[in-house]
Amino acid sequence: MSSTMQAVVKAKSAPGVEIQEVPQPAFGPGDVLVKVEAASVCGTDLHIYNWDPWAQGRIHPPLIPGHEFCGVVAATGRHVTTVREGDFVSAEMHVACGKCLQCRTGQAHICQYVKIIGVDANGAFAEYVVIPETNIWKLDPSLPREYGPILDPLGNAVHTVLAGEIAAKTVAIIGCGPIGLFAIAVARACGAAAVYALEINEHRRRLCHEMHADFVLNPATDDVSAIIREQTNGVGVDVVLEMSGHPDAMRLGFEILRTGGRVSLLGLPSSPVEIDFARDIIFKGATVQGINGRKMYETWYQMEALLKAGKLDLSPVITHRLPMEKFADGMELLRSGEASKILLYPNK
Amino acid sequence: MSSTMQAVVKAKSAPGVEIQEVPQPAFGPGDVLVKVEAASVCGTDLHIYNWDPWAQGRIHPPLIPGHEFCGVVAATGRHVTTVREGDFVSAEMHVACGKCLQCRTGQAHICQYVKIIGVDANGAFAEYVVIPETNIWKLDPSLPREYGPILDPLGNAVHTVLAGEIAAKTVAIIGCGPIGLFAIAVARACGAAAVYALEINEHRRRLCHEMHADFVLNPATDDVSAIIREQTNGVGVDVVLEMSGHPDAMRLGFEILRTGGRVSLLGLPSSPVEIDFARDIIFKGATVQGINGRKMYETWYQMEALLKAGKLDLSPVITHRLPMEKFADGMELLRSGEASKILLYPNK
Amino acid sequence: MSSTMQAVVKAKSAPGVEIQEVPQPAFGPGDVLVKVEAASVCGTDLHIYNWDPWAQGRIHPPLIPGHEFCGVVAATGRHVTTVREGDFVSAEMHVACGKCLQCRTGQAHICQYVKIIGVDANGAFAEYVVIPETNIWKLDPSLPREYGPILDPLGNAVHTVLAGEIAAKTVAIIGCGPIGLFAIAVARACGAAAVYALEINEHRRRLCHEMHADFVLNPATDDVSAIIREQTNGVGVDVVLEMSGHPDAMRLGFEILRTGGRVSLLGLPSSPVEIDFARDIIFKGATVQGINGRKMYETWYQMEALLKAGKLDLSPVITHRLPMEKFADGMELLRSGEASKILLYPNK
Amino acid sequence: MSSTMQAVVKAKSAPGVEIQEVPQPAFGPGDVLVKVEAASVCGTDLHIYNWDPWAQGRIHPPLIPGHEFCGVVAATGRHVTTVREGDFVSAEMHVACGKCLQCRTGQAHICQYVKIIGVDANGAFAEYVVIPETNIWKLDPSLPREYGPILDPLGNAVHTVLAGEIAAKTVAIIGCGPIGLFAIAVARACGAAAVYALEINEHRRRLCHEMHADFVLNPATDDVSAIIREQTNGVGVDVVLEMSGHPDAMRLGFEILRTGGRVSLLGLPSSPVEIDFARDIIFKGATVQGINGRKMYETWYQMEALLKAGKLDLSPVITHRLPMEKFADGMELLRSGEASKILLYPNK
Repeated sequence: MSSTMQAVVKAKSAPGVEIQEVPQPAFGPGDVLVKVEAASVCGTDLHIYNWDPWAQGRIHPPLIPGHEFCGVVAATGRHVTTVREGDFVSAEMHVACGKCLQCRTGQAHICQYVKIIGVDANGAFAEYVVIPETNIWKLDPSLPREYGPILDPLGNAVHTVLAGEIAAKTVAIIGCGPIGLFAIAVARACGAAAVYALEINEHRRRLCHEMHADFVLNPATDDVSAIIREQTNGVGVDVVLEMSGHPDAMRLGFEILRTGGRVSLLGLPSSPVEIDFARDIIFKGATVQGINGRKMYETWYQMEALLKAGKLDLSPVITHRLPMEKFADGMELLRSGEASKILLYPNK
Repeated sequence: MSSTMQAVVKAKSAPGVEIQEVPQPAFGPGDVLVKVEAASVCGTDLHIYNWDPWAQGRIHPPLIPGHEFCGVVAATGRHVTTVREGDFVSAEMHVACGKCLQCRTGQAHICQYVKIIGVDANGAFAEYVVIPETNIWKLDPSLPREYGPILDPLGNAVHTVLAGEIAAKTVAIIGCGPIGLFAIAVARACGAAAVYALEINEHRRRLCHEMHADFVLNPATDDVSAIIREQTNGVGVDVVLEMSGHPDAMRLGFEILRTGGRVSLLGLPSSPVEIDFARDIIFKGATVQGINGRKMYETWYQMEALLKAGKLDLSPVITHRLPMEKFADGMELLRSGEASKILLYPNK
Repeated sequence: MSSTMQAVVKAKSAPGVEIQEVPQPAFGPGDVLVKVEAASVCGTDLHIYNWDPWAQGRIHPPLIPGHEFCGVVAATGRHVTTVREGDFVSAEMHVACGKCLQCRTGQAHICQYVKIIGVDANGAFAEYVVIPETNIWKLDPSLPREYGPILDPLGNAVHTVLAGEIAAKTVAIIGCGPIGLFAIAVARACGAAAVYALEINEHRRRLCHEMHADFVLNPATDDVSAIIREQTNGVGVDVVLEMSGHPDAMRLGFEILRTGGRVSLLGLPSSPVEIDFARDIIFKGATVQGINGRKMYETWYQMEALLKAGKLDLSPVITHRLPMEKFADGMELLRSGEASKILLYPNK
Repeated sequence: MSSTMQAVVKAKSAPGVEIQEVPQPAFGPGDVLVKVEAASVCGTDLHIYNWDPWAQGRIHPPLIPGHEFCGVVAATGRHVTTVREGDFVSAEMHVACGKCLQCRTGQAHICQYVKIIGVDANGAFAEYVVIPETNIWKLDPSLPREYGPILDPLGNAVHTVLAGEIAAKTVAIIGCGPIGLFAIAVARACGAAAVYALEINEHRRRLCHEMHADFVLNPATDDVSAIIREQTNGVGVDVVLEMSGHPDAMRLGFEILRTGGRVSLLGLPSSPVEIDFARDIIFKGATVQGINGRKMYETWYQMEALLKAGKLDLSPVITHRLPMEKFADGMELLRSGEASKILLYPNK
């Protein structure tokens, strides 16, 4: 019967999830009901699955996680005007309050009162998900169908790369999980002069090569600093995109940055980090940016434009495709370090 | 004997030039003597050749014209430290005063007291040319040798394209002489989502196709406005790069611009132009930029980075190669509309 | 009986207005009903009153005009959460669609589908006006009460002045109606090094002095260009704010601009204007900005901050205070050139 | 006899200085010989005097220190064209190489090969000092004579304040030595909505009041974070200017910053500092800027413009005036915490 659906449910305050039959979600006059076609797994989902301290403080079971997805509009609330049944869509899952200073001055991506669907409300690891119309993003039918669920992390990459000048600049990307890998593609497409991909995991370094990074270095074994100094005539790289959150990686990033360069920080360190501010930021005249989410909705327009123009080949990053009920297998793959982006498909 | 050289000389205040044997130029302690390997011809040179009103007001014969070239350092003044004999070089031919407000605040490309070598002083259509060390640009040996003489106009294109955001933007380039053609390559390399090349000359439109513009339109026969409106869902293009200087082209550019877009004006109209400022600039919230020369020396760094990275294939734009003594033939080719960039080679 | 109210009504497609008793407006769940405390008159209102060609093409009688006001919240729709009965408020009267590219990328002030309350829907020349909650701006009780109705044009001034760098810059303001006068105050408060006020009307020039412009010039009799050249050591002004829309004023603005300067255009010329783009924009490397409305809502935050800090004395600009039923007298005052900002007070 | 002069000399690799009679300096064809009218003392001079580890690593005695001064041109090299004998001048004491990437792209203030007069070469604590013409700044005779020697630190303040938007912004200045005190004046002159001055030293807090900071807080006893939260409706300040270099002050700065705000770091911490990057920079979407020196020469133009306009009253910051031979007394005053800016006058 159509009024229930299969979903991945964080049912209790403990590690793991359950595959449950749950009621289809109700939706309001400003909402869009989407039949999920594919979802993808984020590191955040692994935190929720593992029930680590962050998850214990933030998540209130029962919850259907999942904030990366695409699907087809199944029904719309009566106030909805911009999409209709049958449209192929994805969504920005950060729901901004719309009323704070940040929201009212073009910085909704850092809304002080943001709620995240899939974290603070039921998400997309299910047959259906409910999204406010404001947050729906209608996809051009020409886009590769498989790119639909990965627009959220692609958006992180686009936001980070385009947070400053990139054309004709040398750039180091530190930490090449899915967002770092996407950033390689985006930086190249936007005219970066040379992309240095830094990553300690061998599987990920193989993917860096597949994404056509100009240099793929292993900070655990390569003398990254010496290599970059040599390649840049002693100057350093113009741009550092930090996507690992690791303290040593951050320090390395500041070290290889040229005087007057930009560091964009996306990776989240789990505790305070000690940096030599005098040498690495102040004397260098560096600019350091904290990057969070995706700009609403400038980043989405940018993504769509780059994808429609065929500028981004993201296929190497999608390493696995599983039925959604095999969610736990996906978690194991992520833990093993042998997977990058995993797509989940609900039963039809 | 080595103390004379062959040169193209604007000998008198009248149309035409002469090929003369002239003394090799003397150079001072801060100067670099360059043996010219190749020079290229600019529309400015045609003005000088034709002796049009602009030339009559600006040029003081006798003058060796020529401001696009590359060559090899033949000798250096005693204060010169950054290049030495044998280096492969080109040069920024706008010599800024270094002392005005603009020069001292990072805007030397619009120095109030600029002198141009090849216009205000003897230039590069000769076997040797003298350049102040400040203006020499040492070329990476890996660059295609033929790109050496065309860096000046390529710099115009790079400066124009990168004068604002270009990644993920739709862009119309109006007027596809050499700089417009270069701009197609630069915009594509820097992530433009779609490049519309607008050009009435058939030969140039063929080159636009060779430069891989996404759309090549003829404003004389195509309904450019309707086509762009349709292709952009009624929005218009994000960026207009105006490189023709023609009043109708300028008006068309403002018409196809989206609300909130950027217009960068490089083409020089020969007289005042009537524009509907209220409709096309003010209500649109447009930004209009006057573009002049190349940034000293940010544009040169950008060019070098893009060329070294292999991001720019400029070969279709070089349509002819002539011995320098055939200068007059080059002028005829330019007038015919069947040439784009013409390289001139001095006798060895 | 409270269900009717007095209003200024554009009753027919002809010059003039009528003072009518009309029903109090109904409001929806997302709306705010405001009891108008004071309104002020804009040039747009004079166009509507005169029934000029612009008005004939845009206005659909019957209409209550008026888009500059302040008042007290009388009632709120059931979805309204950010204001409540008794709050002192003004409003942004440009109602953006919220769904177009511009609205979704931080440019709602140039929304392609904007509706203006007081132009496209009933406005504030009445005892009550209805405003969507999104557009209400709650005023700090510490603000001078009389500044409430003039925030709309003050916002134009703030948006124009702060559309680029102003601190330590010389600035010419051309056309000193209310917005130009406000711009004098804003530029001074934000660190402009010298403010040149250019205005042909004698009454307005007196107000320029009261606003403490550093130089008050009459383009009809002063050699503005020579004076500015002398005062700026031949350089020209860094910034031109054009607020007259007059073709000669625009040309003068471009003439006095320094190489590399900014021109922000707010005044609307009534027909196309001929400009020497080569000399005045391209060779100058100038930046020209079309300015429309106020940024939603960055400009409002800026205004509030400057006003709360006591940085702006706007009192000289408010030249007249009338009961709203004397609307026609206000129109005559505006036509005479002897008024600047006129406040209208509804009965009660 | 005129060929010797009195100077403050760091004669040996040990604490202290000596007052010596030394030869007047020779100057080259591109140099300017300046008769020092007044010099002022910087924290750097105290490091040199104390012979701390930084000084031991950088200074090569014998050296005349001093990099803040004004004076009158006594003689010029034969290539000098922009100043002449009798001109009132100050100078930028950072001598940039002019040839590195940074110098050639408008970032000479962070030249990779900078030499500092008064640190790497003989400076201004003497009757005469030699300055390259490129670095001379001719002063308008209308400027208060006493402001001549303090333009270097004023430039630090101007560079920091104007490194981002300041008009209509709330700003916290942490650490109110001379540069912090100057920053109060500059921020106010450029339209800051509210200036919070944070300083633990009582004498300096009195000066903060004299500079008209809106709030003067003592981080050692006030709950700065709570006060700012309350004053800003829980939002935090838009801009933090960190001028103390103290780790706790830096952490406090990041704490009171609003989401999406700017932190400009000028104060130099003496060792690495631990910051909660995830909470304070990344989730906040903050922008952090390292600030070094003064922009060459944009900052100088800005200073001159603000001073000529009478926008800055800096007199409270100058607390002491001494004959230059009392240099050691000045050092004691600085150590005591009871002095801010100390001017030194050479014997005439």
